[in-house]
Amino acid sequence: MEKKLANFTGNIVFVGFGSIAKGVLPLFLRHLPVTPDRIKVVAADPDHEKIAEKYGIEYREIRLTQENYRSILDPLLKRGDFLVNLSVFVSSLALIGLCREKEALYIDTSIEPWEGGYTDTGSSASERSNYALREEALALGRSIKGGPTAIVCQGANPGLVSGFLKQALLDVARDNGITDRPTTKEEWANLARQLGIKTIHVAERDTQNTSVRKKRNEFVNTWSIDGFIGEGLQPAELGWGTHEKHWPSDAGEHESGCKAAIYLNTPGAGVKVRSWTPLEGAYHGFLITHSESISIADYLTVRENGKIVYRPTVHYAYHPCDDAVLSMHELAGKNWQEQPVKRLMRDEIEEGHDELGVLLMGNEKGVYWLGSHLTIDQARESTPHNNATSLQVAAGVLAGVIWAIDNPDMGVIEPDDIDHERMLEIARPFLGEIVGSYGKWTPLENRNWPFEEDIDKSDPWQFKNIRVAS
Amino acid sequence: MEKKLANFTGNIVFVGFGSIAKGVLPLFLRHLPVTPDRIKVVAADPDHEKIAEKYGIEYREIRLTQENYRSILDPLLKRGDFLVNLSVFVSSLALIGLCREKEALYIDTSIEPWEGGYTDTGSSASERSNYALREEALALGRSIKGGPTAIVCQGANPGLVSGFLKQALLDVARDNGITDRPTTKEEWANLARQLGIKTIHVAERDTQNTSVRKKRNEFVNTWSIDGFIGEGLQPAELGWGTHEKHWPSDAGEHESGCKAAIYLNTPGAGVKVRSWTPLEGAYHGFLITHSESISIADYLTVRENGKIVYRPTVHYAYHPCDDAVLSMHELAGKNWQEQPVKRLMRDEIEEGHDELGVLLMGNEKGVYWLGSHLTIDQARESTPHNNATSLQVAAGVLAGVIWAIDNPDMGVIEPDDIDHERMLEIARPFLGEIVGSYGKWTPLENRNWPFEEDIDKSDPWQFKNIRVAS
Ligand SMILES: NC(=O)c1ccc[n+]([C@@H]2O[C@H](COP(=O)([O-])OP(=O)(O)OC[C@H]3O[C@@H](n4cnc5c(N)ncnc54)[C@H](O)[C@@H]3O)[C@@H](O)[C@H]2O)c1
Ligand SMILES: NC(=O)c1ccc[n+]([C@@H]2O[C@H](COP(=O)([O-])OP(=O)(O)OC[C@H]3O[C@@H](n4cnc5c(N)ncnc54)[C@H](O)[C@@H]3O)[C@@H](O)[C@H]2O)c1
Repeated sequence: MEKKLANFTGNIVFVGFGSIAKGVLPLFLRHLPVTPDRIKVVAADPDHEKIAEKYGIEYREIRLTQENYRSILDPLLKRGDFLVNLSVFVSSLALIGLCREKEALYIDTSIEPWEGGYTDTGSSASERSNYALREEALALGRSIKGGPTAIVCQGANPGLVSGFLKQALLDVARDNGITDRPTTKEEWANLARQLGIKTIHVAERDTQNTSVRKKRNEFVNTWSIDGFIGEGLQPAELGWGTHEKHWPSDAGEHESGCKAAIYLNTPGAGVKVRSWTPLEGAYHGFLITHSESISIADYLTVRENGKIVYRPTVHYAYHPCDDAVLSMHELAGKNWQEQPVKRLMRDEIEEGHDELGVLLMGNEKGVYWLGSHLTIDQARESTPHNNATSLQVAAGVLAGVIWAIDNPDMGVIEPDDIDHERMLEIARPFLGEIVGSYGKWTPLENRNWPFEEDIDKSDPWQFKNIRVAS
Repeated sequence: MEKKLANFTGNIVFVGFGSIAKGVLPLFLRHLPVTPDRIKVVAADPDHEKIAEKYGIEYREIRLTQENYRSILDPLLKRGDFLVNLSVFVSSLALIGLCREKEALYIDTSIEPWEGGYTDTGSSASERSNYALREEALALGRSIKGGPTAIVCQGANPGLVSGFLKQALLDVARDNGITDRPTTKEEWANLARQLGIKTIHVAERDTQNTSVRKKRNEFVNTWSIDGFIGEGLQPAELGWGTHEKHWPSDAGEHESGCKAAIYLNTPGAGVKVRSWTPLEGAYHGFLITHSESISIADYLTVRENGKIVYRPTVHYAYHPCDDAVLSMHELAGKNWQEQPVKRLMRDEIEEGHDELGVLLMGNEKGVYWLGSHLTIDQARESTPHNNATSLQVAAGVLAGVIWAIDNPDMGVIEPDDIDHERMLEIARPFLGEIVGSYGKWTPLENRNWPFEEDIDKSDPWQFKNIRVAS
């Protein structure tokens, strides 16, 4: 028998049973003290693969809505149970609210609105942002101190990357002869400042591939296509650093909240940025909005006498698998009218890896990337029903769930609030190789050729240098 | 025996023996009265496929340079011979000059500079443009009236598309109740004006595909990778219409010459435009510079009392095969540092077609696309050593060569100068289905969602509406 990592006597209710939940389930059964009869699933699609049935788990095919979610979920939840929300199109806020009432634990990997919320042009871009969703979740947390732990955004990214970030800061500190170990938010922020970190990317290159080519009018990806299109059509968002000198012409500021992030009045799926990973080298990624862009920037903000004196720029630079790049290209070509066919690749993947980590820029030693390099073969060897992408996420969920069980009354929690050593300790066995690697890359490398470009040579780490103009 | 289409007693010298020349050779042997002993090849690579050898043709592996081209080619050419230049990295101007001296016929499918000319940052963007290369060729033509026919840019595009354009204008004229048949440049230009054509795209979607995926650091395409990268790194260029109201902020004007076209101070490989083909529907293509963008805009310019009163905007909107899209994405991600590995797909192609034509925009009946829809299977059935892309080009070359043989003393000639009916008559058997098709598409379709965009609603056919901003 595998080692159980926590003491848990409640029931588990999955909402959503897509690529991530299917990958999480075997981890739960292996590493949590639960038996299949204590797990239930509510999701909108039939379980085509019959995984729930195979494991002997109750599966209810129901499309949750604003109207029905209470009546359906209320009877399934009691004090000490765990609601694991791995759905799309279901409001995280609604589910967190319900869990607080029922004194149940909660986790998700993305703060989601009800269906259509991401592209509801009746609301402003600011209202459709992850910034707004995060502020709402945090406000709910503040409204009652403590309460059952509800972890938002604890997958791989958002999720594990907040742990990678702290490990990376410690590594760079060590290489700069700094041995103090931060223990508070303020100390982490000061360390980042001391190390001269100006910009942080979540730098991801997914190379998973199959010889079954993407067809016309088909969107292919290694995780939720609805999820990717949804966040891709939200405004691009980034934590906005104090070193930035060039305000993007299409940027907008939020009127309330932490103000750690800004948004662009354009879908992230249409914004490309320059980034770097150890295996890929220089690449163009999509600036897709993610909660960690905001939470990390917020977490690392240094205030002196109430004035903000330091914050890094933080955003995602996502190079999805090749077929997803082509899918996004096609989607853009149709002015964001969704492809009628969606294919989530898992068992047909023939090769590749997901190289996912944080890239710290600004320290004198060069850029530093730390993250997981997980191949499809490693993922398959480790855990059934996964590809490399879903297993990285599942590892983050497992870490979050165990932390929540061990810390059950912390209220609304973000990955940045979680002890990163414990988080990575739980996740590490599933992440393939954990790589920490310096590079000499800057976004000014090979620029100004064969045409002069509008760049700021005085500081490579300006967002202006990182964004790809067309 | 196949029908011979012309009367020709000279020798043929190929310069370059890549994807296009290999595809052209079997057409020549079938449709020209030449025997293998009258054909010679000079190219820089070994003939790995031994095609020349198979056909019994003399093959010389020589890298032509500014220094050696005369001494090598002079002895191979005499009066009445034909130099077929299907190389990259060899100056078309130099070869045309030599052919005029030797009274030999000449054809190419692209006016090329010596190696490195496209990205020589010692010269201005204007000097690196196809506009400049074309002006030089035309000046050479004007310097001596008549002389041996030298056709520049006669492949598929540039090349056949100038014929498609005239056929498309006649089709739209017919559907507008206009039955006059233009015979001169002025009449064609007046017809385009009368039909309200504001913008013309060469709209191409190549869907040829193989299950052998593009690898990292590999550029995959269906025709010359050196050629595609070369033109992709030239400035984006477009014929600039008289209806345009918004001058692109990165545009430049040429100081001399016909002034029918402008350039952007950015590589075409980094500029995307919205376009449409009957099979693909709406798509994003690359605004790669091509000679036809300039020559067609020049050809269709209407002057009244020396003043320019009409000209359409003309440019390429190229959606290469999927692996080439990924290759370009990778190349851009490395700031145009070429991939070390190049793979030209032909025999490994498993499916797909090349949909290549002209898209006429502005007439009240809707947009009108006319062109070739050639599948890989049709291409293979028709002619050995080809894919759909190379056969379309080869058909254009064959048409040009036959026309030149029949019209041997016309001096420097562009596709627009060639009788389009004869051109298409010769090429048609190799082009699969010739499709003429109206569409309701405009570049404003589905725009302003989910974000407001900076568009000009008063005229869909403004370049501002067509260019993809980021
Ligand atoms: N943080 C991370 O690292 C990370 C990574 C990948 C995915 N995610 C998030 O995880 C979530 C799940 O991703 P996935 O790849 O498993 O998605 P998926 O598309 O594979 O599955 C989505 C699931 O949601 C269910 N669903 C849809 N509408 C529903 C409704 N109205 N009521 C109940 N269930 C409904 C579907 O039936 C399906 O089971 C998404 O929110 C995604 O953004 C996070
Ligand atoms: N108009 C059109 O429709 C069209 C379409 C495709 C290609 N083209 C043009 O046709 C030409 C050939 O394309 P391809 O796909 O066959 O190219 P390719 O890359 O397959 O082959 C290029 C050939 O040029 C030769 N070459 C390179 N340097 C040389 C040198 N210094 N001296 C002599 N030979 C040299 C190579 O050995 C090779 O045989 C290119 O100019 C390309 O732009 C035009």
